[in-house]
Amino acid sequence: MNIQLDKHGRLKHFLSIEGLRRELLVDILDSAERFAPVGERAVKNVPLLRGKTVVNLFFEPSTRTRSTFELAAKRLSADIMNLNIEASATSKGESLSDTLRTLEAMNCDMFVVRHQNSGAAEFIANQVASHISVINAGDGRHAHPTQAMLDMLTIRRAKQNFEGLVVAIVGDVKHSRVARSEIQALNTLGVAEVRVVGPKTLIPSQVEALGTKVFHQIERGIAGADVVIMLRLQNERMQSALLPSAHEYFQAYGLTERRLKLAASDAIVMHPGPINRGVEIDSAIADGPQSVILQQVSNGIAVRMAVMAMAIGTQAIAGAN
Amino acid sequence: MNIQLDKHGRLKHFLSIEGLRRELLVDILDSAERFAPVGERAVKNVPLLRGKTVVNLFFEPSTRTRSTFELAAKRLSADIMNLNIEASATSKGESLSDTLRTLEAMNCDMFVVRHQNSGAAEFIANQVASHISVINAGDGRHAHPTQAMLDMLTIRRAKQNFEGLVVAIVGDVKHSRVARSEIQALNTLGVAEVRVVGPKTLIPSQVEALGTKVFHQIERGIAGADVVIMLRLQNERMQSALLPSAHEYFQAYGLTERRLKLAASDAIVMHPGPINRGVEIDSAIADGPQSVILQQVSNGIAVRMAVMAMAIGTQAIAGAN
Amino acid sequence: MNIQLDKHGRLKHFLSIEGLRRELLVDILDSAERFAPVGERAVKNVPLLRGKTVVNLFFEPSTRTRSTFELAAKRLSADIMNLNIEASATSKGESLSDTLRTLEAMNCDMFVVRHQNSGAAEFIANQVASHISVINAGDGRHAHPTQAMLDMLTIRRAKQNFEGLVVAIVGDVKHSRVARSEIQALNTLGVAEVRVVGPKTLIPSQVEALGTKVFHQIERGIAGADVVIMLRLQNERMQSALLPSAHEYFQAYGLTERRLKLAASDAIVMHPGPINRGVEIDSAIADGPQSVILQQVSNGIAVRMAVMAMAIGTQAIAGAN
Repeated sequence: MNIQLDKHGRLKHFLSIEGLRRELLVDILDSAERFAPVGERAVKNVPLLRGKTVVNLFFEPSTRTRSTFELAAKRLSADIMNLNIEASATSKGESLSDTLRTLEAMNCDMFVVRHQNSGAAEFIANQVASHISVINAGDGRHAHPTQAMLDMLTIRRAKQNFEGLVVAIVGDVKHSRVARSEIQALNTLGVAEVRVVGPKTLIPSQVEALGTKVFHQIERGIAGADVVIMLRLQNERMQSALLPSAHEYFQAYGLTERRLKLAASDAIVMHPGPINRGVEIDSAIADGPQSVILQQVSNGIAVRMAVMAMAIGTQAIAGAN
Repeated sequence: MNIQLDKHGRLKHFLSIEGLRRELLVDILDSAERFAPVGERAVKNVPLLRGKTVVNLFFEPSTRTRSTFELAAKRLSADIMNLNIEASATSKGESLSDTLRTLEAMNCDMFVVRHQNSGAAEFIANQVASHISVINAGDGRHAHPTQAMLDMLTIRRAKQNFEGLVVAIVGDVKHSRVARSEIQALNTLGVAEVRVVGPKTLIPSQVEALGTKVFHQIERGIAGADVVIMLRLQNERMQSALLPSAHEYFQAYGLTERRLKLAASDAIVMHPGPINRGVEIDSAIADGPQSVILQQVSNGIAVRMAVMAMAIGTQAIAGAN
Repeated sequence: MNIQLDKHGRLKHFLSIEGLRRELLVDILDSAERFAPVGERAVKNVPLLRGKTVVNLFFEPSTRTRSTFELAAKRLSADIMNLNIEASATSKGESLSDTLRTLEAMNCDMFVVRHQNSGAAEFIANQVASHISVINAGDGRHAHPTQAMLDMLTIRRAKQNFEGLVVAIVGDVKHSRVARSEIQALNTLGVAEVRVVGPKTLIPSQVEALGTKVFHQIERGIAGADVVIMLRLQNERMQSALLPSAHEYFQAYGLTERRLKLAASDAIVMHPGPINRGVEIDSAIADGPQSVILQQVSNGIAVRMAVMAMAIGTQAIAGAN
């Protein structure tokens, strides 16, 4: 019994890739494919969520992710309300639970949640009234499922299917909710091999149990890979003595033209953004022909539109019964 | 001659309950009843204020009240602009009057005003051009009329009518704009008795002149009451020596199950939120069967839609003449 | 080859008055005349930019200018997203170029840019993808072309045409992007004489080369003028020893009733706002019959609607080819 699904297996909340069947992930990708052309039309709106109220419930600041959900909601014709919770009622001592009850009573339809604590989105989904859908926009080190799905859409568009692919995820896997969700999505969709590549301090213990191979040398980690996903390095890591310096990190793990030659000749390079040029990745690669970084951004709007429409659609069916 | 009304007695601004006739308050409640189902529909928008510009003019921060007005405006299909005035032109030395003139010249239709000074909303209503409606979203200790009216809607929905009701308002009446507006609304709508309950330091002198009975013991104050309205205790009060501590306040004035048994057996419990659990009110009460706190929130959207539509409707009639 | 124009001479970006032909400025004014009545209608929206995404890209805070663009975009039925760039990804170390690439990949249609550096809007226009229009909402001391055009609209509405007019611009011309754009617009539209009036420390050297006459005495500078444009004095100037004090400035350059009598008897008085009453201008003048300061604000919405519609229209034609 997965909290993300209704009793017919339809997507109701989108909290994590974990526990979702391959068919559902493919449904999300197929739906996103149908939304992708909307962004290229003269009129980029569709009336699907007209009269619905979406709340961006951000407990952690994020301009980029918030903006993509805001745009996705507006292109679906929903009303969207941005709530920065640090600045709001919780500072008056209101409990999270009371904040949720209050937003429910305002007849909101969807909460897009970003939170610094792992598990916060599921905690909220467990608490909300049955007519509300929760979308996880990143919770602690736990999950960032819309980012993983936009990455899957980008891979499928470049490689047509997942079978046989070797995918290398390079960098700070330990602290990355993006990596965790990507590993789950890649394995569910049936790639041949998922590799995680980074220094010992940045690779979580027992990551092999998630279905990955561990490499500490980037040259070996990306050798023959079809997809190379570079993770963003948080500056905090450098300060906390997990890493010597940005320069030394680039020497050891930065993606350069020389290193990329070790991957498959038609390998694509991905990054969730924002990029630290010269830290994780050389500018020549980021802007080069193998980079699909900007396609990831475009696909992000399409995937978010798809997930929002599916989840609210599931609730509409429930409400009609 | 009430500045809130046009020459035919229709609502033009909504600044205070004071001076409004019973029939007008009943009109607001009846209109809100018609808007209430909109929030439960699949499509929560109506096109009533399409093409109108509403400005949230907040001189004092408030996420909760601002959000309810924002939602109400969006569900009426108005365009809404949030202006945090502390961060805007007044910090460049512009006078309030010049800020108002500028917004008028942009052809805005309505200002929703929150201000730390009592009387600020009326001051602004006296200054604005004749085509603009002003809604008071809370001014100093003076008034919070939409909060009072959502409370009245909540009471009428629970009790059908106001005649014969005994209503107890418990807590920091002295500093509460909510209490002041509630007392006026309850008396205008003809309840049998309005009681104010709290320590001497938190009950204003001469409050009896407003048509209330004063109680300093909560047990006596809520005895037999049909409606118990708990006020939010501001933390500032504790620091300013008006009150000993949150714990001692709860001992003396907190609403507990034992105390609530003294009220009428079908008494309802209200609170304007956000709640300080364990300070004004026991969690068992806040979440219990007699609590209508979340209905208050839902009714708040309906009442704000009603008031906004009525005031702009009055202006539209004036403009057509 | 002007970056602001497409190959047929249509407006694609609006960065500066410099280099634009008189006919194009007249087109903007004529288009704004058609939008002006929209603000006075009961329904102030037109569906021209429905389904378009406009981003307010503000690197420098500005409530007033941001609000006018937000309103203009909403009245054109566009979706608008406010991005305060100081608070966003660039603080995570992302380059401006990467921020622009990301917004392009989200299929945004227009960037309204305010920046503290002269030339920033053109820098951005040179960088963006071909489907994006850039509107300069003020860059450093360089240009503020929509402010200049709303001033031109205000002058034309008051004086019918530009031929034969004597226009005096009074105050801190040196640091004013508004003055620079006004001088260019006035000369392009063919006024008889543009005067700049102020103390030597606040008049740029070689300003005569822009087609102006310099005056250091206000009495001589506004003598016989048909239009008197007062500039806002930035408080920073006083602190930086360029000026003695606000009081002394008013003594020397403030616009008083006595001084205004020296201008033409039907002269109009303008100010970009917000006004420093008693510093640049006497309140009796600001609120008097010759002041058109509030018309400037109304005209600002119409001019911004016109420019946004023209620029996106040019892009739509390009996209259709």
